[in-house]
Amino acid sequence: MSKENINLKSLFIGPKAENGDLYKAVLSDLIDEHMGWRKNYIPTDPSFITPADQEQPSFKNTVTKTKCVLEEVSRRLRASAVPWHSAGRYWAQMNSETLMPAQLAYNFAMLWNGNNVAYEASPATSQMEEEVGMDFSHLCGYGNEGWGHLTAGGTPANMEGLWYARNFKSMPLAFAKVIPEVVKGKSEWELLNMPTAEIVKIMLSHMDKLDEIKEASARGVGGIDKLGVLIVPQTKHYSWPKLADVLGIGHHHVVSIPVDEHYRMKIDVLEQTIRDLAAKHIPIMCVVGVVGTTEEGQVDHIDQIIALRKKLYEEQGTYFYVHVDAAYGSYARALFLDENSNFIPYEELNSKFNEYDVFEDKNFKIDRDVYDAYKAIGEAESTTVDPHKMGYIPYSAGGIAIKDKNMRAVIGYFAAYVIDKASKAPSLLGSYILEGSKAGATAAAVWTAHRVLPLNVSGYGRLIGASIESARNFYNFMKDRTFKVNGKTITAKMLTAPDFNMVDYVFHMEGATLEENNELNRKFWEVTSSGLVDLYQQDFLVSHTDFAKPDYGDSPVPFVTKELGYSMEDWNRVGKITILRCSGMTPYMRDPETCEYFCTSIKNSIERTLAKIVK
Amino acid sequence: MSKENINLKSLFIGPKAENGDLYKAVLSDLIDEHMGWRKNYIPTDPSFITPADQEQPSFKNTVTKTKCVLEEVSRRLRASAVPWHSAGRYWAQMNSETLMPAQLAYNFAMLWNGNNVAYEASPATSQMEEEVGMDFSHLCGYGNEGWGHLTAGGTPANMEGLWYARNFKSMPLAFAKVIPEVVKGKSEWELLNMPTAEIVKIMLSHMDKLDEIKEASARGVGGIDKLGVLIVPQTKHYSWPKLADVLGIGHHHVVSIPVDEHYRMKIDVLEQTIRDLAAKHIPIMCVVGVVGTTEEGQVDHIDQIIALRKKLYEEQGTYFYVHVDAAYGSYARALFLDENSNFIPYEELNSKFNEYDVFEDKNFKIDRDVYDAYKAIGEAESTTVDPHKMGYIPYSAGGIAIKDKNMRAVIGYFAAYVIDKASKAPSLLGSYILEGSKAGATAAAVWTAHRVLPLNVSGYGRLIGASIESARNFYNFMKDRTFKVNGKTITAKMLTAPDFNMVDYVFHMEGATLEENNELNRKFWEVTSSGLVDLYQQDFLVSHTDFAKPDYGDSPVPFVTKELGYSMEDWNRVGKITILRCSGMTPYMRDPETCEYFCTSIKNSIERTLAKIVK
Repeated sequence: MSKENINLKSLFIGPKAENGDLYKAVLSDLIDEHMGWRKNYIPTDPSFITPADQEQPSFKNTVTKTKCVLEEVSRRLRASAVPWHSAGRYWAQMNSETLMPAQLAYNFAMLWNGNNVAYEASPATSQMEEEVGMDFSHLCGYGNEGWGHLTAGGTPANMEGLWYARNFKSMPLAFAKVIPEVVKGKSEWELLNMPTAEIVKIMLSHMDKLDEIKEASARGVGGIDKLGVLIVPQTKHYSWPKLADVLGIGHHHVVSIPVDEHYRMKIDVLEQTIRDLAAKHIPIMCVVGVVGTTEEGQVDHIDQIIALRKKLYEEQGTYFYVHVDAAYGSYARALFLDENSNFIPYEELNSKFNEYDVFEDKNFKIDRDVYDAYKAIGEAESTTVDPHKMGYIPYSAGGIAIKDKNMRAVIGYFAAYVIDKASKAPSLLGSYILEGSKAGATAAAVWTAHRVLPLNVSGYGRLIGASIESARNFYNFMKDRTFKVNGKTITAKMLTAPDFNMVDYVFHMEGATLEENNELNRKFWEVTSSGLVDLYQQDFLVSHTDFAKPDYGDSPVPFVTKELGYSMEDWNRVGKITILRCSGMTPYMRDPETCEYFCTSIKNSIERTLAKIVK
Repeated sequence: MSKENINLKSLFIGPKAENGDLYKAVLSDLIDEHMGWRKNYIPTDPSFITPADQEQPSFKNTVTKTKCVLEEVSRRLRASAVPWHSAGRYWAQMNSETLMPAQLAYNFAMLWNGNNVAYEASPATSQMEEEVGMDFSHLCGYGNEGWGHLTAGGTPANMEGLWYARNFKSMPLAFAKVIPEVVKGKSEWELLNMPTAEIVKIMLSHMDKLDEIKEASARGVGGIDKLGVLIVPQTKHYSWPKLADVLGIGHHHVVSIPVDEHYRMKIDVLEQTIRDLAAKHIPIMCVVGVVGTTEEGQVDHIDQIIALRKKLYEEQGTYFYVHVDAAYGSYARALFLDENSNFIPYEELNSKFNEYDVFEDKNFKIDRDVYDAYKAIGEAESTTVDPHKMGYIPYSAGGIAIKDKNMRAVIGYFAAYVIDKASKAPSLLGSYILEGSKAGATAAAVWTAHRVLPLNVSGYGRLIGASIESARNFYNFMKDRTFKVNGKTITAKMLTAPDFNMVDYVFHMEGATLEENNELNRKFWEVTSSGLVDLYQQDFLVSHTDFAKPDYGDSPVPFVTKELGYSMEDWNRVGKITILRCSGMTPYMRDPETCEYFCTSIKNSIERTLAKIVK
């Protein structure tokens, strides 16, 4: 094959700072470019900080003070930062090395300090954000009709999605007040179930009255209480109840749907819930599907949610906005996109993967359910996309994409067609989105990463594939592995086969009660990975979580009873299971030799740790 | 005097990159420290990117690709970035050089990529954020009882303040449901006017029922419509109506108070408005005072708002939450704080200023109204503090401070007393605040800046003083300056004496109608500073804004009629005045020689530009 693949090893500083010199050299050149730009602006202007100034004792003392403060910053970071940079020892939180091109672009663009709130304050980086937003749109399957932008993180992106959903729900009620002729004969229930696309269409054909209509919607009048409920899966991120609070919806209007043994929302329960609500004439403001749950990395059946919406609308006129919380999982959609951002047919996946050397295992199988879910993201109204998670971009970089750029008119403060003449970017982005001031440097970082590593199978697909295969290798290493320690037999039991790169497991000690077993796992975390130990000395790091009844209901029961052998009585008594959870972001463990090296070392480390805590 | 002042010239890269070598040298050392940390974690682990890997053609090609993309980033930035780094030519948007110590700390800490959402994901930078939050608390006058944290910017900070205000308003209604004995005999109106401190006190004595109470508050039940109105000054930032929308309050529940000829909220109108609302039993959810308005840099009478609240509560039992939007002005409070964060008596200001060489003019006068307003910030419940504005910190860095750390219990998802044992920082910051994931690097940047440049008269006070005096010098240069161009006389008329460092003015052409004059000023902006010109070639940059009736009412009338000599008929016909607006952030124009140099050059530049556009 003549095509040459991107070399992933050139994209990171490296676990052992192997590319550290390269990073410094490129950064130095970039800084020089900025310095030259400063110096040559109106070249006749003199220097205002002279060599004589620089010789002043107060100058030198202040520089010394700065260095001392930075030394303290360094001491604190070196003393307590988390060694997520390791190629194979960090199996814990969602954190890892970030892409060197993104870091370089951030450092460089920060020197220019653009503020992407307005085009005038950041012409270059505002334009980059517009392009990044369209990248998000293509990534999510919204194509040229969609739109997107950067946010400070996943929470503001989810908030914006919910803001869209809530205000869209109220728009038909505003139509009835301002342009009643358009919705003549529709009942309030029908108005509260008008599809988003139809609302947009009516808006577009009444642009002259749009401001008045919006002032009669939730934006102007409030009246949130009658706009119905927000439906989320039980595995929701804790930010969802918070957002329901902030947006004035209230927790009492949030409905949680139980998850199945794969930790995916139960679609049959979702259907019955919606039918029951509709029977009581309670509108469904929004259904949130999660792609990449925070604790399990699992993927909800987005396709089935979309199909259900279609069925219920046709059958009984019930419509709901769908927002996909893909803060964790969104970038993995690149795995399924070809070089033209087309979704690759399932049968052709393996040949495409092999063309780009995505997986070491040439028959690597992607679950069909996961594939179908990813494909259907393009049918949802909006999707949260977090570059600072699986985009390997430094914090903070979140994002959102919407299905139709005309949707912006609902939340925007200028009409959506007011575009600055000199550019494709809106002249005042802050009036189309939730947030205001934003670092232009973030846009430069994400833009650079997307240009070096395209958002398809040839670019991000390869990186994320390496991460998924690394996690799969770790899963296979850990699955049912037995440790004999101080006369006890301890076995690693896996929570579920991962949809993505999250691996959850429990060390199960023969003969231990559920309480004792929970304590064993908590202790394992505490002595290896809590803030109380010196992380820099640890050669295997984990994170932990509790799946407790109030949040998880009985979804852990199959695992607790069948895999761990506890009774329902045990489960009902204890009400929680302590789990070791890992977001496997390292791409290095894809390599069989590297995997072998670390697995051997980790096995010994686990044995040593267990020997300390099992008496 | 033995004390040696901080040398401000050592704190910036400099308009001509004078300290560029210093920046590079310190950064290089810091990067090496990080690389050493990576390399030495488990020293026995091998390299995973070998010199042989680095010799691969694909490796080299990917590096080349990265460099090409970064070259495009550089080209775009150099081609269209804004030359705000100039010592005296940029008199436009809120942008300027940022502090070198903050930039260095950001670049360095970004390599470690901590996420301040949780202590476990960022032990070092979470601790720094906790310390920065307490800096904010002291800056705002809340002392050790208060608390604060970083946000992505001013909009999320204002949103959090409004979230506090809204949910506090609903808490007494929840008391009546869950712990009715505590509020026995109180009418609903009395409940809706309970002071924040009293609400906190009741919460603290019923911690066992707090979760239940919160679920009965707006958080749980919604019911925003009955929580009353948000009162803002007419000069409000455009984000306030947006926030009223997002929080479910609705624009119809926002009341704008006109401003006086100094663009400060009219307190007598505020009083009458509140009395009228109270007479109709409409609660006041929140009154927002602005310290440093976006367009004028003016400072509302916070002291009079606080005094009014006291008076009305004593007189008729009306209470409202006060949030100060000091996104722009907050850091200037450092001018009034001594080395122990005590507010300096007005009579002692000048001797303190002179002790630290804050102003060139040894009799520099701070308006008493402004002083009193700043002093009273400590009496408001919460304040927005934006490091990325007058903190000279790179984007994005916002912040908020609250008067009493116990207030957190209202919006928090864990009880406020759950503090991680190993640190003073909350273990999961994301559950006490609006946002989730946040760059630890931001905390490092702000922490470093605050340590080098303390938040009092000896540190930030000197920097901000230099900026205020620079703006004052620009104001004095511009005030009533006359240009004779192509037979026309054009005079610079100043909108108002600035409370802070914002200078607004209008070029007034003798004989021009108001329409023609507006067009002259718009055109001046267009040909010097719009996105349509090559900014790098411009030797004088401005920004512009329209004060139009829908937002400003008749507050521009005194200026338009008395200063510019137009009639009320003119004003009513045109309905807007186009203004050149400048946020004078440069500290360099404090120096008389530098000021003289630039003023001469700017004078010539203005003449040349006017000659081109005045026929």
